[in-house]
This record gives sequence, C-alpha cells and structure tokens, in this order.
Amino acid sequence: MDFFQKTIRLPAFPRGFHLITDDLLREVPEIARFSAGMCQVFIRHTSAGLTVNENADATVRTDFATFFDKTVPENDPDYLHTYEGPDDMPAHLKSSLTGHSVLLPIQNGRFALGTWQGVYLCEFRNDGGRRQLVVSVWGS
Amino acid sequence: MDFFQKTIRLPAFPRGFHLITDDLLREVPEIARFSAGMCQVFIRHTSAGLTVNENADATVRTDFATFFDKTVPENDPDYLHTYEGPDDMPAHLKSSLTGHSVLLPIQNGRFALGTWQGVYLCEFRNDGGRRQLVVSVWGS
Amino acid sequence: MDFFQKTIRLPAFPRGFHLITDDLLREVPEIARFSAGMCQVFIRHTSAGLTVNENADATVRTDFATFFDKTVPENDPDYLHTYEGPDDMPAHLKSSLTGHSVLLPIQNGRFALGTWQGVYLCEFRNDGGRRQLVVSVWGS
Repeated sequence: MDFFQKTIRLPAFPRGFHLITDDLLREVPEIARFSAGMCQVFIRHTSAGLTVNENADATVRTDFATFFDKTVPENDPDYLHTYEGPDDMPAHLKSSLTGHSVLLPIQNGRFALGTWQGVYLCEFRNDGGRRQLVVSVWGS
Repeated sequence: MDFFQKTIRLPAFPRGFHLITDDLLREVPEIARFSAGMCQVFIRHTSAGLTVNENADATVRTDFATFFDKTVPENDPDYLHTYEGPDDMPAHLKSSLTGHSVLLPIQNGRFALGTWQGVYLCEFRNDGGRRQLVVSVWGS
Repeated sequence: MDFFQKTIRLPAFPRGFHLITDDLLREVPEIARFSAGMCQVFIRHTSAGLTVNENADATVRTDFATFFDKTVPENDPDYLHTYEGPDDMPAHLKSSLTGHSVLLPIQNGRFALGTWQGVYLCEFRNDGGRRQLVVSVWGS
C-alpha cells in the first residue's frame, strides 16, 4: 500500500454549491496511479464544507443554497458570535451539517462514484476567497 | 497493510431508515480477516444516505423519518428541481445531511461499534430500488 | 504503511460543544510518530457526535448548542422514542447531523488542520457521562 498527500488551493468561488470533481482530478493527477484505494478531500476552513451530490442539474445546487439559507438563518437574535458579519455564524453551522471532508473510493485510477454523483465545494461565506484542501490518497 | 474493495447491491428497501449492519457482514465476509483496520461503506446514489445510530428500538428509526420529513419538506415552492417528483429534491438534501458514507473501525474481524450502534441505510425515495454500495477495507 | 488503533475514554463533559483537539493529542501521543497519514476518531455512542469547527471563540460553541436545540426540538409530540427522557431522541438525531466520526489528515506528526479548526465533542445528553472513542491512525 502506498500513501500520497498534497495540499491544493482552488480558485475563489462565489457563495453557493459548486461541482469540483474535475478540479480535484486535474490538481491531483496522482490519483490515476491508484488501481484500488481511497481519496480523502479535507477543507482547512470552518465556513465552507464538502459533500457529494447530484452532478447533472444545476438547479439542484441552487436548491441546496435555498434550503441551507432557510434552515440556518442569518441574523438570528440568539447568535452571540456576530462580529464577523451576518453570514459568518451560519457558515460555521452549515459546514458542520455538510461536513468538512469527503472520502471517496478509487477504482482503476478514478473515483468510484455513481453516475450522478459529484463532489460539491459548499462556499458559505459571501466572500470566502480561495480555499485550501488537503488531498490524501492511499491504496495500491 | 492490506487493502480490499468490493461492490455490493442490497435488496430494495422502502422509504425510511433501515439497519444494515448484518447485511454488510454477510455480503463482505472478508471483513473477518482483518484484526485491526477500517471499513468504509459508500453509497453510489444521491437520494439515499448512510449513518450510524441506535440499533435496538425500531421507534428511533421511525422518529428519524419523521424528523427528516419535517425538516426537509416536500413541495417547497422555492424548489427549482421538481421534475423527478416531490420526494426527489428533499432526498438529495437529506442525503447530504446524513452523509453518503460511514467509516467504521475494525477490531478482531468485527466492527468496533458501541453496544447500541448500527449502520443505517437511509432510503429517501418512495421507490429507490436496489442501492449499490462500495465497501473498502484496509488494515492488518 | 503502518496502522495503529487505540480506545480512549474522555472525562465527562456537560451538554454542549467542547474542543478536544488537545485531549486527543495527549491521549494518543503515537500520532506524533506519523510523518504523513490519517487519523480517524470514532465515538462509540449514539447520543453524542464529533465535528470540526472554529477553535478560538467560545461563543461559536454556544451558538452551536442554541442552533441544534432549536432545529431538533425536545418534546416533539410526534416522537415515539420517549422513554429515555426528553433529551434522548433529539440526541440521536443531532448525532447523525454532526456525524459520529472525524477523519483528519496528519502532516509531520500533527493534525493538518486549518488555523481556526479544532475537533468538537458534541455532547447531546444532559448527563452523558464519559464517552469512549476509537482512534485509528495509518500512514508512514
């Protein structure tokens, strides 16, 4: 078994849910060397998240933003942590709902995702900037 | 360290939360060969999920369905992605709340779960059909 | 590649969200031996969770408790699983929203977390007692 680890930075994304499956494969071509293994993608931030979901219809990603904004409202008068702006505390909460990492099986040098699955970067800040990801791969 | 990977298909489950711990051990008997390791179960679909929760009282699983149906309502007029039916967009959202995979430690050929823990398959579609899982195991 | 696994018990925490990054490093000094690898922390309970979030401002952790208590209410008349007390069924639900494990990259013997990231133990019971964690580490 082999282990490989690399830190990458993605371009800045606007607030919302964004497909990054192809960005990962382009930034970490070493994935193609693994015939069977695992790839973890970990985001080094607390106001953005990662998840796996539908890769075809962009309205799904819009509906994700709508749902998360309704479920985790801004300007809740009960929030104490408010000094970084109204989008900050909701961003922390949303990121623990989606999670900060995804763990994907690899088969024949590619992610063994279902036909309709892709990796989402969930940008919860209005101006999150470029996000840093640690990509770890192990297997044979 | 050894690495093992297998794709399995479970029988179709009705909408709801279902214990599949024993199904996994039966479908992947190779788990018993690992004295210490990890097992990831990954579902290759975007309208079903996996989680770990209480394994004893079936009313917990019913309450899970009740809670998720309330928290992620069908027929929200704000949804744009509606053409696959009223259960579809909520299913996508619910699956990112539970997650698409579980990662379980293995000790002495068995999952090192707590006494009251089991693996749930979370079927969020009314008629999801048979679900495909990639099971990956590594360790010694 | 090497694999290491250890079960630890943390002190009892009150209901709420608690930073345990330092507890993990103290209880599992073996992490320092890995130059590049992964560490999974798995909680062997169904009424507590683990997540990664902001490590600096304690009000973030208070706001987490506020949000989860609002989003997963106690005493919902629709709950069937009520005989373990009003905090029990919400605790099961919350733990599947945060998740039961975190998977952290290791670089140079330390968690490769972002500057503002820490590991939270999410105690959802009023009196959860000491919680058992399985810590698994692999890499080189």
